[in-house]
This record gives sequence, structure tokens and C-alpha cells, in this order.
Amino acid sequence: MDGLQALVDDIRREIATQTERGRVADYIPQLAAVDPGHFGIAITTVDGQEYVAGEADTAFSIQSVSKVFTLTLALGMVGDRLWNRVGREPSGTPFNSIVQLEREQGKPRNPFINAGAIAVADVLLAGHQPKEAIGEIVQFVRFLAGDDTIVIDDKVAHSETETGFRNVALAQFMRSFGKLDHPAEHVLGVYFHHCALAMTCRQLSRAGLFLAAGGRSPATGGTVVSPGRARRINALMLTCGHYDGSGDFAYRVGLPGKSGVGGGILVVAPGKASITVWSPGLNENGNSLLGSLALEMLAQRTGWSIFGA
Amino acid sequence: MDGLQALVDDIRREIATQTERGRVADYIPQLAAVDPGHFGIAITTVDGQEYVAGEADTAFSIQSVSKVFTLTLALGMVGDRLWNRVGREPSGTPFNSIVQLEREQGKPRNPFINAGAIAVADVLLAGHQPKEAIGEIVQFVRFLAGDDTIVIDDKVAHSETETGFRNVALAQFMRSFGKLDHPAEHVLGVYFHHCALAMTCRQLSRAGLFLAAGGRSPATGGTVVSPGRARRINALMLTCGHYDGSGDFAYRVGLPGKSGVGGGILVVAPGKASITVWSPGLNENGNSLLGSLALEMLAQRTGWSIFGA
Amino acid sequence: MDGLQALVDDIRREIATQTERGRVADYIPQLAAVDPGHFGIAITTVDGQEYVAGEADTAFSIQSVSKVFTLTLALGMVGDRLWNRVGREPSGTPFNSIVQLEREQGKPRNPFINAGAIAVADVLLAGHQPKEAIGEIVQFVRFLAGDDTIVIDDKVAHSETETGFRNVALAQFMRSFGKLDHPAEHVLGVYFHHCALAMTCRQLSRAGLFLAAGGRSPATGGTVVSPGRARRINALMLTCGHYDGSGDFAYRVGLPGKSGVGGGILVVAPGKASITVWSPGLNENGNSLLGSLALEMLAQRTGWSIFGA
Amino acid sequence: MDGLQALVDDIRREIATQTERGRVADYIPQLAAVDPGHFGIAITTVDGQEYVAGEADTAFSIQSVSKVFTLTLALGMVGDRLWNRVGREPSGTPFNSIVQLEREQGKPRNPFINAGAIAVADVLLAGHQPKEAIGEIVQFVRFLAGDDTIVIDDKVAHSETETGFRNVALAQFMRSFGKLDHPAEHVLGVYFHHCALAMTCRQLSRAGLFLAAGGRSPATGGTVVSPGRARRINALMLTCGHYDGSGDFAYRVGLPGKSGVGGGILVVAPGKASITVWSPGLNENGNSLLGSLALEMLAQRTGWSIFGA
Repeated sequence: MDGLQALVDDIRREIATQTERGRVADYIPQLAAVDPGHFGIAITTVDGQEYVAGEADTAFSIQSVSKVFTLTLALGMVGDRLWNRVGREPSGTPFNSIVQLEREQGKPRNPFINAGAIAVADVLLAGHQPKEAIGEIVQFVRFLAGDDTIVIDDKVAHSETETGFRNVALAQFMRSFGKLDHPAEHVLGVYFHHCALAMTCRQLSRAGLFLAAGGRSPATGGTVVSPGRARRINALMLTCGHYDGSGDFAYRVGLPGKSGVGGGILVVAPGKASITVWSPGLNENGNSLLGSLALEMLAQRTGWSIFGA
Repeated sequence: MDGLQALVDDIRREIATQTERGRVADYIPQLAAVDPGHFGIAITTVDGQEYVAGEADTAFSIQSVSKVFTLTLALGMVGDRLWNRVGREPSGTPFNSIVQLEREQGKPRNPFINAGAIAVADVLLAGHQPKEAIGEIVQFVRFLAGDDTIVIDDKVAHSETETGFRNVALAQFMRSFGKLDHPAEHVLGVYFHHCALAMTCRQLSRAGLFLAAGGRSPATGGTVVSPGRARRINALMLTCGHYDGSGDFAYRVGLPGKSGVGGGILVVAPGKASITVWSPGLNENGNSLLGSLALEMLAQRTGWSIFGA
Repeated sequence: MDGLQALVDDIRREIATQTERGRVADYIPQLAAVDPGHFGIAITTVDGQEYVAGEADTAFSIQSVSKVFTLTLALGMVGDRLWNRVGREPSGTPFNSIVQLEREQGKPRNPFINAGAIAVADVLLAGHQPKEAIGEIVQFVRFLAGDDTIVIDDKVAHSETETGFRNVALAQFMRSFGKLDHPAEHVLGVYFHHCALAMTCRQLSRAGLFLAAGGRSPATGGTVVSPGRARRINALMLTCGHYDGSGDFAYRVGLPGKSGVGGGILVVAPGKASITVWSPGLNENGNSLLGSLALEMLAQRTGWSIFGA
Repeated sequence: MDGLQALVDDIRREIATQTERGRVADYIPQLAAVDPGHFGIAITTVDGQEYVAGEADTAFSIQSVSKVFTLTLALGMVGDRLWNRVGREPSGTPFNSIVQLEREQGKPRNPFINAGAIAVADVLLAGHQPKEAIGEIVQFVRFLAGDDTIVIDDKVAHSETETGFRNVALAQFMRSFGKLDHPAEHVLGVYFHHCALAMTCRQLSRAGLFLAAGGRSPATGGTVVSPGRARRINALMLTCGHYDGSGDFAYRVGLPGKSGVGGGILVVAPGKASITVWSPGLNENGNSLLGSLALEMLAQRTGWSIFGA
């Protein structure tokens, strides 16, 4: 697939010509300070090849992309019982909406909106102190990426803790419905920290490759999850991975993916490759504007859309 | 693919053993009178083979499955301008909710909820009398299925017209926001009639085959839509095709599909086949209970999920 | 109370100096064409005195003020059973919101929002053709005002019928919940016609006087409603009479009242007088901007607030 | 008014015969443990007479009744600027709903729902430590009641702090919109403490008497608030004092009042008296079931309804 190197180079060049780059997330200083001009892309194929362009080795805050990994961990711990805690439906509302939580008595609609990921963090705390749970998440991501240098950006985690009032409200609200087993402070500690993981496009593509490879980790040959679970996680990414822009992303790109407000998007082309793009400017739904565009180009030129013949 | 005949036979047998069959839609007498014991399944492969079991040649009311065909027609008429009239996001609410319409000033979330299909019907009325628009829809479905015997069940259409107060409310509500170009009565006339199309599993599978075949009609060799449009319609079916159970259907079945309250579901396995199942009992989201289960079996045993490696 | 004549003259003069007059309702041509410069005020005391200023004898479209009279009639017909059909709570949403109707399964929050008045009109249709029900309402208002010249403005009623899509949606929506006994067209016919009553400030004050006089009609000496019912209607006007501005009106004016989008407001000072003001420009809640201000002045200078010592 | 003693005795007797007493609030152990059989009533007239029956001298947790006093204090501090922080409209939703806060960007609908009282507590913290603000509130209530023995029940305050997750969510949610000036913990500290004031019917009636007496404290002869402010606080109590049962209370009782989940209700008959009832069992809106009934009897027999002739 030599064409893929030319493809990522092309995409990088075309993205560089774009003048409208979206708005960088500004709710914490660490994200607000990021230059919107960054762009990186990395493709990791299931046969182990890598094709990168732009700043593919610059770490950024993966934010909500981390929810794919905590979901995988939680499913490994409690299996389908997870769905007693959180639904599997698109939310139809912004990522941090509290309205739906009231209507559904504290049960979040899916594991990728903030409330849902907070519920998942609560599951990961079972039998653990927050520090341990955070440690397990970091170890898991390092294992998936085959890279022990991956760390949490403590400044980001600290800023989120200081200013994440909306997430505190979500957690306390779920607590008020008896839907959290642990103190909201502990749960949020886990949540804010895993969102603060700093990774590069290359690392993130490697870490997500098992979802493209039927649940196996091509690097180690080991099984991360069963093929069925990999399929189902992909299905959740497709229907719920981009907040209230999930339908649009499926329509335009046609691949399961998960975005983060740091501007990263991890995408899975089942049987073919995992792909990560990074461009910090966001669209009105909180997803990377140019990252989405780059992936639309990629899907069009590779024909990797899961909806095609 | 001889295995497919054994597969549909197996599925029919296993479905026959199920005791919980869901609730038949009862808002009009014609649907309420349907025996919940019916079951049919038909697979049409892109190379023209057909595999059927059960009552695959018994006509049923396709109801909302027809929205796939009216969407295809409307996209053919106005292209992407359609998206000024209707969104592309899952709704997060029941199929006939009016709440979201108020929040979004009369613009429906997607073309598959009732309000969205009403907006699509309004588009199809451009330059036409209601009768003509209905005629065009019937002609299009006959052409797709290669079967001129397909007709609208007038009793069903009439009953809907008599009792579809909620849909009247949706249409009048959109009208109050200036979002309909034609009188609500005309738009609803078109909507109620296309929902009353009576088709068999075999006919419906044939009619939907172009979506599995990159937009071509394998029977005639002609192009119905471009490959890109077929992909995008499939994406919409995946994210929005089953009302507030779309996420669950994607999770369990992993194929784009569209359900109707008559108990039919049309599903697309891109590059492989179109499939239709019919079982009149519905689950709490208004989708065929055993039809969903049959498709879950089929996806599992064929490995056709679009989310798999 | 000779001071009252000076008071209404003063108020008229002060209102004339106001430059910000609000926005005239523009959803039908008949209302849109009304000059925002009109102003009238009439006080009718329980001992039969009248004090007027400005255009107190010019007829205007009373619109929702008519809901006080239809409520009174319906309570006379079915008594407290009315409250099975409609609630008694402020709505917390705009006058024509449909959201609450969905949450509460088609039961309107109170008889003064549009949906509630539509439910009341349905009650008034029992045993009647629409024309008869409308005739009874007109007769009742004429009787209350002691004035047989009061008529419905047919052009207004016709325009509402032509363009009142939102109200049609409300009625059909209630019908879909089984909450209307009669065809939506009939119910709306009654509703649109009573809203189109044309009355002067003087006529409206006279017609509302029974609510200030413990249920008696001071002119005839007859009893319109019991003292308890008069009190309770007044309570409903206080909590629900001004849509989502009811709290503000109670805070500023402190008297039970009912407003209409024609710019009229009928107000009751229990034991003292009924008052009507008319100024066509509306505030953001759909209540007369200068009419509210005039009543605030009046309440302040008379000390008639029901909340005072 | 010797009849008043007979009246309260009668009411006490009739209430004692009621078998349906409502449900005691059970979200904290201190309230859950209260015997639903308690009943007390106290009338304090503006000329200084007191009429009591039942357990009028037993202290109970006044809970939300305290919001009348904090509102009065806050208006004294910042005047009408308070209305930039909180609205004056009935909410149309339960007392602790978070939905409306999202729709209105963190501005509560009125000062008597939980979110609104939290905003008022934030105002009271200006220039103060939480302990000082709490101290001022206690001093103010002691001054109004002329009774230095009134204290906060620390166990109740502590329990609320431990389990009031919903209120924490409300405060954090408002904080996320930038609508609180102080840390949520401080604001909630003030809020939970003033709700934990323990008072008797007699003390509460005395403390609320200024609202019936045009703002003056009949005991001391001093002015607490201006007559206009007393009127306006009464208006707020009428439209918003009983959560989503405010309309019903106005309809049945016809007097401004404020209820608390401890089962107390303070009511104002302008120019005549303040009245307090206490019966711990609540109706479905969170207001004292038998307390409301007792007040309905009282209003009926005294003719004190503000809506009457």
C-alpha cells in the first residue's frame, strides 16, 4: 500500500491550504494555548505498516478519545452488565447536556458522552483507589500502543479538576439518583486524569489498531478483546463517537471514530487500518474541523467507508 | 453461497420457537388485526441469487421502510439541498416526538423520523399534485423491485388519514415555522400513502438491493444512485434507521437498516446482499422484535457486520 | 372616588409620552395593521361608576382575554370536572409551547395557555354544533357587558383559521392523546372565533366586573358565579393570566388579570373595580407593554394591589 | 377576633380525623424520623394577638420556608439588582429540576426553587465568610421573631451536606455558567444551614408578620421593608411559593405562602395576620398535605382570600 504514504502527504498539503481552521477549545488554559496550525496524521495498517505526515509525533491531549480505552477496560471487567449503568443510544444533545440525565433518571445515554464516561470511570474504580484505577488505564494504553513513555499531562488534569464544574454537576446529579458507587470526587479524579493522557497520532493509531484487527493486537499477536466485542465497540463509535455530530461524521466519512476536544480523532477501518488525525480547531459540535475534513478525504480516496460496496 | 438457504431455514425454525413475539401496532385497525405469528425472510445477493424462508411472498404494510425510497427520490430531485430541510443526526427521542421540532424551530433531525419523512414528502410535491407524487413513488418502487404488481393498500392509507392526529400535529407544527411549502393536507396525503405500500419480503429485498450494490440495480444493470450516495444513504440508515433503538440495532446487528411499524426491516450488507425480515410484533422502540433477533442471528453467522475485520 | 377620573387622565397623559411602545402582533394581517399608538383605559367600579380615558370606546380584538369568559362558561357547565381536562399550574413556557403537552400526555397546564383554552372550547362543544357554541359565547359576553352590539370580527377569525398552524398542531396533538372529544376543526372553529371578539375597553371592563364583585353582576343584580368561583377564577388569572410573564405581572401590578395579543388586558381589583387597558404593542412575553405599565401606575396610586396591607 | 381561637381549635380537630396524611420527606434521616402525626397551627394578627392550637410550640425544620427570609435579606443588600441573578416566574417543573437551568443558561426561574435560593445564598456571601453569612441569617430571623432562642439544627445541616447531591449538582451547574461568585461549597454551606433552621409555628408566624403588616414589625414598630417590597415578596410567594403546586395553592387557599419539606407552611393574609401550619406528611408536589388542607379551611372560614370581594 505505497499509495498510502502519498495519500497522507497529499492530505497534509491540502489541509495546510485551508484558512478556516475552527476554534481551539478554551475552557482550560492548557488547551486554549494550543496553536490551531498544528496538523498530524498517522495510519497503522493491520499488517503493521505505518504511514505518517505532519506532526504525527507531537503529543496532544487526547481528551475524549480516551473513552474508547476506558470503555474497553470496563467491558473487560464487567461485560454486558455495563449496559445496566449506561445506554447505547446516540444522545441527540450536546456532549455535556444534563437534561437527558434528568429524563432518564441518572442513566447516561451512551459511554461516550461525558456523563457516560463518568459512569464508566465509576465502574473502573471497583476495588481500587483512584490512583490505582488511573494507573491501570495508563498501563493499558501503554500496552496497546507498545510504548511505555505515554503519560498523563498533570497540568491538564489539574486544570480540569479546578474548572470542570459542569462535569462535577453531572457526577453529583448521577449521584443524586444513586447511580454512582463511589464519591463523585474519586470518580471525577479518574475521569479528568484519563482525559488528560498526552499521546501522538502515531501512538494513538497503534493503540487503536486492535479495533481494526478483530480484537487482536497485531504487534504482540495477543487478543485484546474478542472479534465480537471489537465489532460492537466500533458500532458504538459509529453511532455515538462524535457527540451531536455523529450522524454527520458517519454520513461524510463512513468510519467508526472517536473525537476529543484536544482536536484528535481516532478512526477504525475494520480489517484495514486505524487512523489518527490531529488538528486543534473544533467545529460547532466540538469535533476537529480539519481532522474531520482530512478523514473525509482519506475515506473517499481509499474507499474504506464501511457503507460502500 | 448455498449456505444461505440453510441459514434462512435455520433462522425461520429458531424464530418459530420464540414465545415472546412483541406487540403488534394497534393504532389503526388494519395493523392491529395482523397475526403476530407471521414470519418471513428474504436475502437477495448482489449477484442475483435469492434465498427465502417463511412467508417471504406475503405482502405486509412496509410503513416507514418506504422512507428509504422517498429519501432516495428526494435526493435525486434536489441533491444536497435536501439537508437545508432536514438534519442528519439521530434524534435521541421517540419517532413521533414533537419536542425536538420545537427546539430546532421546525427542522426535523433526520429523514427517517416521522417529521423528517414529512419534510421529504413536501420536497417530492414540488411541481406535483399529491396524486402525481404518490404515483411517482409507486413507480419508483416498482422499478426498483422489477415488479409492477406492487400497490398501495388504500384502506391503510385511509385509516392513517383518519387517525394520524400526531402526524397532522407534526405537519401543522412545521407549517407554523414556515417549514412546509405545501398545504399540510397534501403533504400528509403523500406521506400516509407511501407508508401504506404493501410489499413482500422478496419484493422489498429486491427494491433495496441497489444500496448493497454501490447504487446499481443488478437486475437491470442501470445506475439508481452514485456509489457515494448509496454509501451515504446506508450511513443514515445505520445511525437513524430504527428511531430511538438505532444504537442498539447497530450494536447487535451491525448492518444499515430501516424498520417499519408493520414489522418489516430492510437491511443492507454492502457488497453482499439486501435482506428483508417481517415479524409483526414490535419492541418498546417500535421495531420488529423477532425481526431484529433474526437479523442478529444472520449477521453473526454470515460475518456480514460492517464493523468486523 | 372622583380621584379615579384624574388618575386615568394622568395615566393616559403619561403613556402618551412613552417612546418605546413594543411590537404589534403580526401573525395575521388584521392585527399587524393596527396602529401601535392607540391607548384606552376604563375603570368600572363595583358601585357602578365608570372612569375612562383615551380610546375607551374603540373596539379591538380581545383575543386571549376571551379565555376568562369561556373558562367561566365551562365551569358553569361541568364544574370541577373541568380540572380532569386541564391543569391549574403556571406553564413556565411560552403560550403556544407544545413541549409541555408531550410531557403531560396531552393535558394542558392551565386554561389560559392556547392548548388549555382549546380544551375548554372542546368542553363548550358538548351537545352543540360549533356555530351554536360560538353563539352561546357571544350571548354570554353580551349579557355580562349589558351590550348587544358586541360581535365577532369575522375577518380576524378567518385569518386565524387560515394561518393558525401552531394552534392546529396543538389541537391535533391533544387529539392524538385522546384528549379532545370533538374534531379538531370544530374545536378550533370555536377557539378562533371567541378569540376574534371585538370589544372596547368600556365593554370589557363591564363584562369582567362580576369577578370584582364576588360573582354578582352589579348592573343586573344577578349572580353570574358563586363568590368562591369568582375568587378561584381570579386566582387562576393571577398565576397564569400572562403566559410566561405572569410572575412579573403579579410582582409589578399585584392584581389578577388576563392579557391578549391584541394588546388588551382585563384586570380585577376584588371588591373595588374591574379595569381594562388597551395598547397594541407587546413585550417579549406577548403582553401589552404600555398596558402593563399603565396598570402598574394604577395599582401603585390606588393601593389596590391584593398583596398590600 | 375571638372567633379565631375557636377556628384554630376546630381546624386542629378536623385535621386529627384525617387518615391520609401524605409522605414524610425521607431524603435525610432527621426528616424521615419525624412522626407524620404532628400538627400545629399559629395565627399572629397584625394587632398582636396570637391564636394557636396543636403543637404550635414544637420546633420543626423550616427548610424552604427560610427562603422568604434570605430573599428579604438579599433584596435589602442589593435591591432590584437581585433580578439579574434570578427570575420572578413560576418554574413549571419540580423544585429541584435542572432542565430549566440548562435552557436558561444557569439563571434560576425564581428565588424559591432550590437553584434560585442557592443564587440568593451566593448574594448573601458577598464580603462574608460562610459562617458570618449564616450568622446574619440567624440574627435576622431571631430579630423578626423577637426570640433569641432560635437555632440551626446542626445534624440536619450536616445530613443535607452529606447527601444533597442534587443541590450540589445545581450549584456546580450554575458555577459552570459563571453564575456563582463564590465556591459552590461555600454557597451550599449557607444554603444547607439556613434550610436547617428549627422553629415553632408560633415563632414562624411572628417572624413572617411584617409581610402582613405592610413591611413593619408590629412588635417593635420598626420597618423591616417598605410597603411596596412587602407586597412584591407576597406576590412572589403567591406565584412561586409552592413549587409546581403554586397554582393549585392559589386556587384553593388564595393566600401568599411558602412551604418547606419539613411540612411547615407560612402564609400571609395582608393587613390581617400571618399564619403557620405544620404537618410533616407531604403531597406529590412536596408541600404539606394536611397543612394545605388546614389553610384551605382557614381561608374559607375567615374570608381572607386575597381574591375575594
